[in-house]
Amino acid sequence: MKKTLIIAISFLLVSNGYSQSEDSLMIKKISDEILMNSKAYDNLHYLTKQIGGRLSGSPQMVKAEKWGVELMKESGADKAWLQECLVPHWVRGGSDKAEAVYKDAIKGNLLHTKNLDVLALGNSEGTKNKNITANVVLVNSFEELEKKKDSIKGKIVFYNYKFNPTFVQTFRSYGDAVQYRGAGASRAAKYGAAGVIVRSMSHSADNNPHTGSLRYDTTLPKIPTMAIGLKDADWLSSQVMNNKVVSVTIKTNAHFLPDTIGHNVIGELTGSEFPDEIITIGGHLDSWDPAEGAHDDGAGVVHTIEILRAFKALGIKPKHTIRFVLFMNEENGLRGGNKYAEEAQTKNEKHIFALESDAGGFTPRGFSFGGSPEQLKKLQSWVPLLYPYGVYEITNGGGGADIGPLNRTFKTPVAELGPDSQRYFDYHHARNDVFENVNKRELELGAVNMAALIYLIDKYGL
Amino acid sequence: MKKTLIIAISFLLVSNGYSQSEDSLMIKKISDEILMNSKAYDNLHYLTKQIGGRLSGSPQMVKAEKWGVELMKESGADKAWLQECLVPHWVRGGSDKAEAVYKDAIKGNLLHTKNLDVLALGNSEGTKNKNITANVVLVNSFEELEKKKDSIKGKIVFYNYKFNPTFVQTFRSYGDAVQYRGAGASRAAKYGAAGVIVRSMSHSADNNPHTGSLRYDTTLPKIPTMAIGLKDADWLSSQVMNNKVVSVTIKTNAHFLPDTIGHNVIGELTGSEFPDEIITIGGHLDSWDPAEGAHDDGAGVVHTIEILRAFKALGIKPKHTIRFVLFMNEENGLRGGNKYAEEAQTKNEKHIFALESDAGGFTPRGFSFGGSPEQLKKLQSWVPLLYPYGVYEITNGGGGADIGPLNRTFKTPVAELGPDSQRYFDYHHARNDVFENVNKRELELGAVNMAALIYLIDKYGL
Repeated sequence: MKKTLIIAISFLLVSNGYSQSEDSLMIKKISDEILMNSKAYDNLHYLTKQIGGRLSGSPQMVKAEKWGVELMKESGADKAWLQECLVPHWVRGGSDKAEAVYKDAIKGNLLHTKNLDVLALGNSEGTKNKNITANVVLVNSFEELEKKKDSIKGKIVFYNYKFNPTFVQTFRSYGDAVQYRGAGASRAAKYGAAGVIVRSMSHSADNNPHTGSLRYDTTLPKIPTMAIGLKDADWLSSQVMNNKVVSVTIKTNAHFLPDTIGHNVIGELTGSEFPDEIITIGGHLDSWDPAEGAHDDGAGVVHTIEILRAFKALGIKPKHTIRFVLFMNEENGLRGGNKYAEEAQTKNEKHIFALESDAGGFTPRGFSFGGSPEQLKKLQSWVPLLYPYGVYEITNGGGGADIGPLNRTFKTPVAELGPDSQRYFDYHHARNDVFENVNKRELELGAVNMAALIYLIDKYGL
Repeated sequence: MKKTLIIAISFLLVSNGYSQSEDSLMIKKISDEILMNSKAYDNLHYLTKQIGGRLSGSPQMVKAEKWGVELMKESGADKAWLQECLVPHWVRGGSDKAEAVYKDAIKGNLLHTKNLDVLALGNSEGTKNKNITANVVLVNSFEELEKKKDSIKGKIVFYNYKFNPTFVQTFRSYGDAVQYRGAGASRAAKYGAAGVIVRSMSHSADNNPHTGSLRYDTTLPKIPTMAIGLKDADWLSSQVMNNKVVSVTIKTNAHFLPDTIGHNVIGELTGSEFPDEIITIGGHLDSWDPAEGAHDDGAGVVHTIEILRAFKALGIKPKHTIRFVLFMNEENGLRGGNKYAEEAQTKNEKHIFALESDAGGFTPRGFSFGGSPEQLKKLQSWVPLLYPYGVYEITNGGGGADIGPLNRTFKTPVAELGPDSQRYFDYHHARNDVFENVNKRELELGAVNMAALIYLIDKYGL
């Protein structure tokens, strides 16, 4: 490839009257500042390599909170503080295990064993480090579970529901499949299952299991539940279908400790005209334990801090107060997001807009927005200003999980960055969600587009 | 990230009358077929891992041609053949070397050596495996070269022109910087330089040197020229600026062997209504020697073959003849592209459209198009049909290098797939352009959008 692609976007800028405007010049300055001087990639390196996975309650959580509040100050916040909240303290408690006993294909009854690559689901109760051995009941859907309900007692239910490859937007595949992770355990426990194995929510080409939280129905036994990698899932399902698997032995030591203290990390630029009207930008600081939480949600964390840094570097003095928030406990409790909205209510704060980045550090394509049709229309009128930086659509949808409570409490309009989604579920909640799988420029362009949107909302309101 | 992003694209489909049309249903079928059953990723695995780098004239070129023509047949071509052309046969001839001698920072005059990571540029003449030792003249631009022209004789010129990070479209940065690779050697030779080192055309975070072809002015000495990795380039420039580098020793055995025989690989689906009117789809089969040529242009190769496979699998019988072409020698001669147009002229063929994929296997964002404004408008009217699959713009630009001769000979309208460009120059012509850096779904979506465009052009003409 030798040729230069000339991307003709100028006609768009001209066509709606923003041509050469103050706004497009300012957004170009923001983009140049971030693409030349960003610290997002270096900050992500520190967070992932020096701190690592930082699940609520873990020592890494504490380390990350300290790092975050210091970095807010260094990056130019007028104020920075920790907002305390109680967080659940789930621990894996050791390495998770699943071993299948199967018959040899040629020699008939000769028995072999195969280790399966598994991770206990977040918030699950383990086997108290004891082996549980049981036959496997394979079900490809909840419909199949219902049909087989009489043969489930004492067995391990294996949900093999596949991530749908035909949805171009991978979050649709996730929305479609995640019910098996969230509700599968209790639906199987209802029929007396001894444990559950869930096919990972991914269409990656590797065998990494993908964890994530489940929700137990508290009226039913809390049975041990684990995710299995895709290659092992394919192997196990074909073995079960051919009546070759005799049994599976599972072992996990997952359990809850008492709730402990965690914190949202908050930095603030105080508004010059409307200091009591607050715009929130955030990502979540906690991440699953087996990985570095680079895309989920290290990217959102460093996006948030980068916007603060860039605003200060460019001398942008916002009219409204801007809060830069690293939320705690998005992954298995949402206590941070809830606490932030609760305190806002107690203090009678006025929250005019909130923006989250929690879909990875990939090249931006759009924003999703949760607010009134008129507000959506206003945001969409700015698309030509964002277009040169990758954002070509603002769609009706919603914000991230952490700012949901703000939206529900105050009807605060919310938005979320929509990066390209093709690689997200290769890494999501899996061991390979590491720094090396984040591209520097893709990460930076997320911050560019978020900063530009915040600049426009601060200037024009919503 | 737990939430499903609902991407509201339906309004677009409704707004221009394509709603629920035959075309959108057909394109959905094409997308499903490719996202469920694609062989593109497996084919790329074979090409990169079993064949590898396949520069014109190399044994791997011959192997790739055989593989290509067999795969065309397997994938359902009505006919498949090799189109012979003479190709240049440049060889690296061994490993390239550059070693700097520098003064110790603390102990003053104590001398040390440092190996620099370099690759001789394609089409360059080496040092005939002998060492050339000379002082380094650092220039950051051609303007600086002119200012220092009297101090260049016998020296090694080091072009340290930086890839501009502020262009969001990375091909603009490439277009801006590539002149130093292409013309730097002869411009330095004019002033008596003994050799040239060029900063790699990349903004990657690693130290891989990026090769690529140069063009010598044949009236001037052909001096040895190599690319240097970015970290080494930064080190070398700072050492030279601080007067710490004493000299650099370079060695390469790069040279040309006599021209040899290569081939374009061509598969054909014969048109049912207009068999004499030809639509060409292609990528280039050759790739630089130090890598696997996965993005450049293994992706274009497997895109091309995947479209053939998908058309056959879906029983699409094109009205026009469709040629699937794997061009030879794009990287250092364009002999395949020229041959294809020459033979078309000799045979008086009618070429109505050509489409190339040569910008990597990343998520598609658009197409660039070279043709009349009316034709561009017609293509743009189809954007709502492509939008659900990632393509949101068709811009005025051009096609790929290989179909350029067709455009110049017949004024055939041409287009090129425009994938997301952020990662392309991390890998382009460097050792890390390997299979592992291609994402399966991103690759497949390229084929989906290309297949959809070809379907529309075959159905409606241009």
